[in-house]
Amino acid sequence: MTLVLVPFADARRAEPPPPTDEQIAVQLRDEALAGQDLAWDWVSELTTRFGPRPAGSDNEQRAAEWAAARFKALGFANVHVETFPITAWVRGVESAQIVAPVLQPLAVAALGESPPTPPAGLEGEVVIFPTLADLKEAPPGSLTGKIAFVAARMVRTQDGEGYGAAVEARSGGPAEAGKRGAIAFVLRSVGTDTNRLAHTGTTVYVDGRVPVPAFALAAPDADQVERLAALGEKVHIRLYSTASYVKDAHSQNVIADVPGRVHPDEVVLLGAHLDSWDQGTGAIDDGTGTAIITAAAKLILDLPNRAPRRTVRVVLFGSEEVAQPVAPGGAFGGHAYADGHKAELARHVLAGESDFGTDRVYSLALPAAVAKSAFATTVTRVLEPIGVLAAREPPRYAGTDVGPAVEAGVPAFALLQDGSQYFDIHHTANDTLDKVDREQLDQNVAAWAALVWLAADSEVDFRPKAPAHE
Amino acid sequence: MTLVLVPFADARRAEPPPPTDEQIAVQLRDEALAGQDLAWDWVSELTTRFGPRPAGSDNEQRAAEWAAARFKALGFANVHVETFPITAWVRGVESAQIVAPVLQPLAVAALGESPPTPPAGLEGEVVIFPTLADLKEAPPGSLTGKIAFVAARMVRTQDGEGYGAAVEARSGGPAEAGKRGAIAFVLRSVGTDTNRLAHTGTTVYVDGRVPVPAFALAAPDADQVERLAALGEKVHIRLYSTASYVKDAHSQNVIADVPGRVHPDEVVLLGAHLDSWDQGTGAIDDGTGTAIITAAAKLILDLPNRAPRRTVRVVLFGSEEVAQPVAPGGAFGGHAYADGHKAELARHVLAGESDFGTDRVYSLALPAAVAKSAFATTVTRVLEPIGVLAAREPPRYAGTDVGPAVEAGVPAFALLQDGSQYFDIHHTANDTLDKVDREQLDQNVAAWAALVWLAADSEVDFRPKAPAHE
Repeated sequence: MTLVLVPFADARRAEPPPPTDEQIAVQLRDEALAGQDLAWDWVSELTTRFGPRPAGSDNEQRAAEWAAARFKALGFANVHVETFPITAWVRGVESAQIVAPVLQPLAVAALGESPPTPPAGLEGEVVIFPTLADLKEAPPGSLTGKIAFVAARMVRTQDGEGYGAAVEARSGGPAEAGKRGAIAFVLRSVGTDTNRLAHTGTTVYVDGRVPVPAFALAAPDADQVERLAALGEKVHIRLYSTASYVKDAHSQNVIADVPGRVHPDEVVLLGAHLDSWDQGTGAIDDGTGTAIITAAAKLILDLPNRAPRRTVRVVLFGSEEVAQPVAPGGAFGGHAYADGHKAELARHVLAGESDFGTDRVYSLALPAAVAKSAFATTVTRVLEPIGVLAAREPPRYAGTDVGPAVEAGVPAFALLQDGSQYFDIHHTANDTLDKVDREQLDQNVAAWAALVWLAADSEVDFRPKAPAHE
Repeated sequence: MTLVLVPFADARRAEPPPPTDEQIAVQLRDEALAGQDLAWDWVSELTTRFGPRPAGSDNEQRAAEWAAARFKALGFANVHVETFPITAWVRGVESAQIVAPVLQPLAVAALGESPPTPPAGLEGEVVIFPTLADLKEAPPGSLTGKIAFVAARMVRTQDGEGYGAAVEARSGGPAEAGKRGAIAFVLRSVGTDTNRLAHTGTTVYVDGRVPVPAFALAAPDADQVERLAALGEKVHIRLYSTASYVKDAHSQNVIADVPGRVHPDEVVLLGAHLDSWDQGTGAIDDGTGTAIITAAAKLILDLPNRAPRRTVRVVLFGSEEVAQPVAPGGAFGGHAYADGHKAELARHVLAGESDFGTDRVYSLALPAAVAKSAFATTVTRVLEPIGVLAAREPPRYAGTDVGPAVEAGVPAFALLQDGSQYFDIHHTANDTLDKVDREQLDQNVAAWAALVWLAADSEVDFRPKAPAHE
């Protein structure tokens, strides 16, 4: 290959006009799509070095320290860790068996925040309810000494609506079972796979505690209990858990900025969570989310001589998984951020969260105020070529981490990902790095980098307009 | 629709000639393919009622009693259970963690026949070997106090050759590790999936025992250990197992015949095994095998006024999974049958085994003696329409259960199934009923019913011919 040397003076004379915002967005998009190593290396090293990162654990704290050090090394500004107190929930040893008519092991996971069983375990006849609504119709006292089992199946959908519908049984089931005298609650895992790996997740406190020990059964185990009952057998099961609480634990948020060159106090907030459930290594929930927003922000940080007008802030939240409900005496990362930065929220111009796995972004929902704006037209022109449609509605749900900021008035966007496969893995031991697809990861980074750049380098007001005269 | 009544007397006058063997084979094939409930109901009830059926367990024994009762109810002759002594291996509580640099849980399964760890567990630095051959090159004493880890990956193949290649590390690894001073042996699961479910399987005795505690790591966990080492970390792991042996256990074979009408002492032997590994419910290994051969034999049993010339014998073997090697003081179903029926084996005309999951049969291997016979031509004509090719070679491997009979001279056939997906599930907790495809199950029954009928109703000699004069 011949190297052509362009005389420097000539090059300066022929200098083109500076690129437009849209041209830079396209450039960021294509750079991300071409494949860059940061997002992959980030999620690989995070999940490999620290494995599971349950809220309040040493692993979560070490991961936060690592992330802060990485942010500094990458050249981000204002890098720091903000610590907050939580009551940590710690899974112990757990097991379950069918004990009658014949001994058979069951694959289970205690639900987050659920109390331990007595040291000898709990044993009882299973009463099967097709749905939570059926359990709610059982008379008081009708489950005394028994184990309530809600067998509802989650529907697979692209947008996660199936999860929203199914998760009610996980949230509300233990209380409904307890009210009727049940000694424990089990449900078919809220998930769409057929692996012998139960899906955990948090359940709801009533009067300061989860009323009865609560477990998820893996889908094949739920099938098995139902089939055994259908053969006319009374099914007795045994449940055991040594779950415990740590009252004086803490978690932390990690913050890193790309400072704005014109309005450094105006913030575009990007969120993802660093904690994970304890059975997998939190690769798709939410290691990839932290990688996507970090890599997108780093692409913007690295633009030569072209910092965005506004600040881009990356926040890696702690203690997201046990956020609903807030444990008594605890908090969670999203609340801690909104509380600690209350005075700044009025100048947070936009917020979004990456916490739905690594599958492709297929839709962008913008705040209603800009739905038909020139900004939306530009963004659509940049993102449609990589498969991202403009959503018809503003985001229905901002996310757990940025949720409290959004409730306080910060406008939210959502880059909606295909969740068809997400709930095969979500909240199980299967959430590991091998489930991450690098091409999908790059497409996410591309969408985030382009959108965030356009929002941060604009003067657009995303807040709802005051009623106009016209 | 108009109903045409054919006068009975006229119908008798027009009576057609009796169907040929081939016509009956086609009829059996199509009846099976059309979908019949026996095979599905069999594997469903077996796996639901008894769950895991490890050799020597109550569950295995109850399943055998249930199978015998079902055989009688279905009208089989000579139904009985033959008991034999074994030393049972019992999985206990087991766990593993990365303990340094950071605590992380590992998904493991103790290998069958492997001894327990000391009650406090074992802890040591992991030394990674890409293959068993690399471990064999390590000098004596070089692993003192350490844990040997063979990280070889199984190759996915249709015919199971990938398993044959990979399983050598499982068989030979513990002894090679022990010789070099290792305190334990771990290997990447012999399997093709990426679930956090380790693949168990038996390992080999040396001087009456497995030399060191031996475990399989789930594939993502093997990845994790390798990646952590690649980051420059020394990886220490902890292993714990309370596995034990029961010296005075027993297992049993269940036998059922379709008696031959001409040569009742000539037997076509169909084998599958009733025991299973203890983590799943033995649906594809080998509940479906027992269902396939039972349903095929039942179709033949139900032929109106047309019992086959020779006897069709179904044997559901016990204690197959721990068959290699035979535990000291033990036996396994295949040996027990060949020993107990030694005098009859000379009149066992053909034997085959269904123990490779439920995926479609794609090839039929016949004994060399009939490779180019009219029998082979007929069978091919019947089976090719359902996707079964004639194999170019006689079976290379008869199967564990019929193996000892075949070694004693009984000719073997093999209906070869597609094993591309089999090792995603094989020997894991995921081996449950939901993994069984009814259409594939029916295709298996169709192939078995047609072939077995043709062999049993023939006078064909499948044994190697004595050297001829010509």
